[in-house]
Amino acid sequence: MAKIRSRSFWSKFQARWMQSRSLVCVGLDSDYSSLPSFLKTGANPIWDFNRAIIDATEAYTCCYKPNLAFYLKDGLRGLEALKQTVDHIPDEIPVILDCKVGDIGNTMAAYVSAFFEELGVDAITFNPLMGSDVAAPILKDERNFGFALALTSNPSAEDFLQQDGLSSRISRWLEQYPKEQIGAVVGATQSAKLESMRKQLQGRILLIPGVGAQGGDLQAVMNYAIDSPETPNILINSSRGIIFKDSGRSFADTAGEEAKILRDQILALIPNP
Amino acid sequence: MAKIRSRSFWSKFQARWMQSRSLVCVGLDSDYSSLPSFLKTGANPIWDFNRAIIDATEAYTCCYKPNLAFYLKDGLRGLEALKQTVDHIPDEIPVILDCKVGDIGNTMAAYVSAFFEELGVDAITFNPLMGSDVAAPILKDERNFGFALALTSNPSAEDFLQQDGLSSRISRWLEQYPKEQIGAVVGATQSAKLESMRKQLQGRILLIPGVGAQGGDLQAVMNYAIDSPETPNILINSSRGIIFKDSGRSFADTAGEEAKILRDQILALIPNP
Repeated sequence: MAKIRSRSFWSKFQARWMQSRSLVCVGLDSDYSSLPSFLKTGANPIWDFNRAIIDATEAYTCCYKPNLAFYLKDGLRGLEALKQTVDHIPDEIPVILDCKVGDIGNTMAAYVSAFFEELGVDAITFNPLMGSDVAAPILKDERNFGFALALTSNPSAEDFLQQDGLSSRISRWLEQYPKEQIGAVVGATQSAKLESMRKQLQGRILLIPGVGAQGGDLQAVMNYAIDSPETPNILINSSRGIIFKDSGRSFADTAGEEAKILRDQILALIPNP
Repeated sequence: MAKIRSRSFWSKFQARWMQSRSLVCVGLDSDYSSLPSFLKTGANPIWDFNRAIIDATEAYTCCYKPNLAFYLKDGLRGLEALKQTVDHIPDEIPVILDCKVGDIGNTMAAYVSAFFEELGVDAITFNPLMGSDVAAPILKDERNFGFALALTSNPSAEDFLQQDGLSSRISRWLEQYPKEQIGAVVGATQSAKLESMRKQLQGRILLIPGVGAQGGDLQAVMNYAIDSPETPNILINSSRGIIFKDSGRSFADTAGEEAKILRDQILALIPNP
């Protein structure tokens, strides 16, 4: 049975920000090969790891973002761990599946069914290359939310996203959709472009990876990406910097401390209204 | 245990064309909701369906292409069906996983491990939006092959792929990669553009969806897309037109007949050398 989703991602996200004062998205990039070795003797190490991470970090977390790749890499056991993880996350904390799917018609409808209905997540990331046919199946249920890849923080984003204004074209394209259902992924290392993207995407939630491990500057993100001090509408993702900071028996406690530190750093950088 | 892959996709594809004289890619879009109803009482209906389809079509098939979305939609049982399906396909017939993944770094490496190593497919489709960081993990094992989305056949391909020469940019971009490892997905409804893309992509394998259900014209594809009569280097994908043509007890026999018809239609359209 899928988890019952009583509310939309949008309303859960806004309520969670008010309640937790956290804009931290904890990326559950739970690669089996990076888990603490003492966990690897269990029946399902990824699930054991995630449960401990969630219990230790939830107080400081706005959203969790499991990354589909690492669960598929662990086969059937990995998919089972993903399901258990989504079920374990408290109902008031929204779950974003990082899957970057981008297909059309009945194929995209099948992904939407697999992720929102079968697995029970609140939001997904998606790749808009094939155009509005990709977004259409997400929009069919108004509780669903999708983050479109708009500007990424990897070196080869120069190949396409940073050419010929493609990122700007994607930003303009997503203005046709309700802000309650479509947001954008914008890389933190692109701080020069964050300001103009935020202007174009007022009122929308931006999911920002790349602070920390990929070299993004938190100060710049907070200067340019927030919507308003009251309603920042951003999520700062951190994965390895939280979940794999400590590979020993205290890994979960350390993750909790790191999540709290990041939550507080972000709060301190929100300008006074 | 993953299936042992003794050869590269490239060499299996070339040998299979010589042996079967088929350029048909049978798309295993095995949506549970579209299966013959009498199959749905079994323990794993998708697996039962695929096994019968493969046994009936293999003689006329160059490659099989399961579509990840429909297996994930059926949960753990679906992923199990996918694994059994890949294991069941005869070793001389290459398997392409249609997943359109497009991520970077350790995430993309995890997809590559999940699909090529854990699941044991010979090739995947991928989305090149994030640039060469997406292709890099595929290339690490020279047996691996990836089909980059270059021009798709859906209506909203106009949003991005058909703007500002993005498709041509993608085609030029993939020239940097060995033809033995990287091909392209090119929609059949774009026959006007097929000719120029083929010129740019000489010697590469083109995976062509959209003949039949999406209105693509087989005659135009055969005029413009083949590399040479001896080495056409194309795969014509058909999914619903083969696997869901008949929803009764003779579904597999019908699928076999449809695959043979398409194989023969294609052969008849190859010009004399």
